Amino acid sequence: MNSHTKYLTFNTHKKREYLNITAEVEMAVREAKIREGMVLVSAMHITAGVFVNDNESGFLKDLDDFLERLAPEDAFYRHHQTGESNGDAHLKNIVVHHQVILPVTKGVLDLGPWQQVFYAEFDGQRAKRLIIKVMGE
Amino acid sequence: MNSHTKYLTFNTHKKREYLNITAEVEMAVREAKIREGMVLVSAMHITAGVFVNDNESGFLKDLDDFLERLAPEDAFYRHHQTGESNGDAHLKNIVVHHQVILPVTKGVLDLGPWQQVFYAEFDGQRAKRLIIKVMGE
Amino acid sequence: MNSHTKYLTFNTHKKREYLNITAEVEMAVREAKIREGMVLVSAMHITAGVFVNDNESGFLKDLDDFLERLAPEDAFYRHHQTGESNGDAHLKNIVVHHQVILPVTKGVLDLGPWQQVFYAEFDGQRAKRLIIKVMGE
Repeated sequence: MNSHTKYLTFNTHKKREYLNITAEVEMAVREAKIREGMVLVSAMHITAGVFVNDNESGFLKDLDDFLERLAPEDAFYRHHQTGESNGDAHLKNIVVHHQVILPVTKGVLDLGPWQQVFYAEFDGQRAKRLIIKVMGE
Repeated sequence: MNSHTKYLTFNTHKKREYLNITAEVEMAVREAKIREGMVLVSAMHITAGVFVNDNESGFLKDLDDFLERLAPEDAFYRHHQTGESNGDAHLKNIVVHHQVILPVTKGVLDLGPWQQVFYAEFDGQRAKRLIIKVMGE
Repeated sequence: MNSHTKYLTFNTHKKREYLNITAEVEMAVREAKIREGMVLVSAMHITAGVFVNDNESGFLKDLDDFLERLAPEDAFYRHHQTGESNGDAHLKNIVVHHQVILPVTKGVLDLGPWQQVFYAEFDGQRAKRLIIKVMGE
């Protein structure tokens, strides 16, 4: 069994951003030199997510509207009694989830034609880390 | 390490359907001839999901109502400016997620007594693919 | 490839509870004696979840409020026609998800500084099981 681990760091301009990281994941798979296996792509923060969907700007705005509707930035959160102001980002993380696991077949990422991997930042403007771990043979 | 990969294709009669695919996943596990490991079950489309829950028709209708309430078919979606009409299906995919990873113990799928694996179609009536990848030893 | 499997059983005092199980997952990783790999942490019930987030009591109450707002305990559920009364717990399970997969690097759980693993009970006051499966080398 081979494994290969990489860390990416993001520092977004805006508080919320959705970044297509498919090329970075594909590169990690090539570096791992496996034929068959899986890749774990996981945010290392509790206010960021990882998901697979469409690289279409309208959809990405729909998603942001949807998450803001479910857990609005300016709502009341008990979490703010700690001095924090990112209660919404914690709940957006719960909805989107912080990780995906992707199949590797014949040496390449085995995604459908429209599937792209995204890092979802919900509380940015500071350095945030993500781990990519490839396992297989 | 052994691995075994299968693709299933679904072409549902209705736009939205929830299909119990537990038997197909169990068969892939048997074919993989592993004792200990994991199975990834992942939709290859951005308008379909995979989840584990109860094979009870009332619950499956509750789930469909719930997803339609969160992301209604006839709401406004920026994604529709591309000519698409499945903006709701993209958001339903985000809520349900497109994949699960299941444990294999002593050669069989190690699920709880009521856990069944479902393929969730949110934009059907056309051929859609799913990947099952078993890894273990 | 090594693998190591453990089962935990929970019997919560309240119907809904959120239990920090990070120490139990870390112990399973140590017992597995792997350097590089992944751990699957998965509820074996359809009315319980597993998630990664902040060990902060305000956030955990925000999460409970959020899930109760999305799928209230006292709403109408078709699932209740079977005699069950936990329709809300099934939908809360869908939102939170029943599993996570975590990276293991250099022999330890490779989480970010604030990431903790939680078992989310949505229909407790009875024995419920969870599986931890470590795979790697």
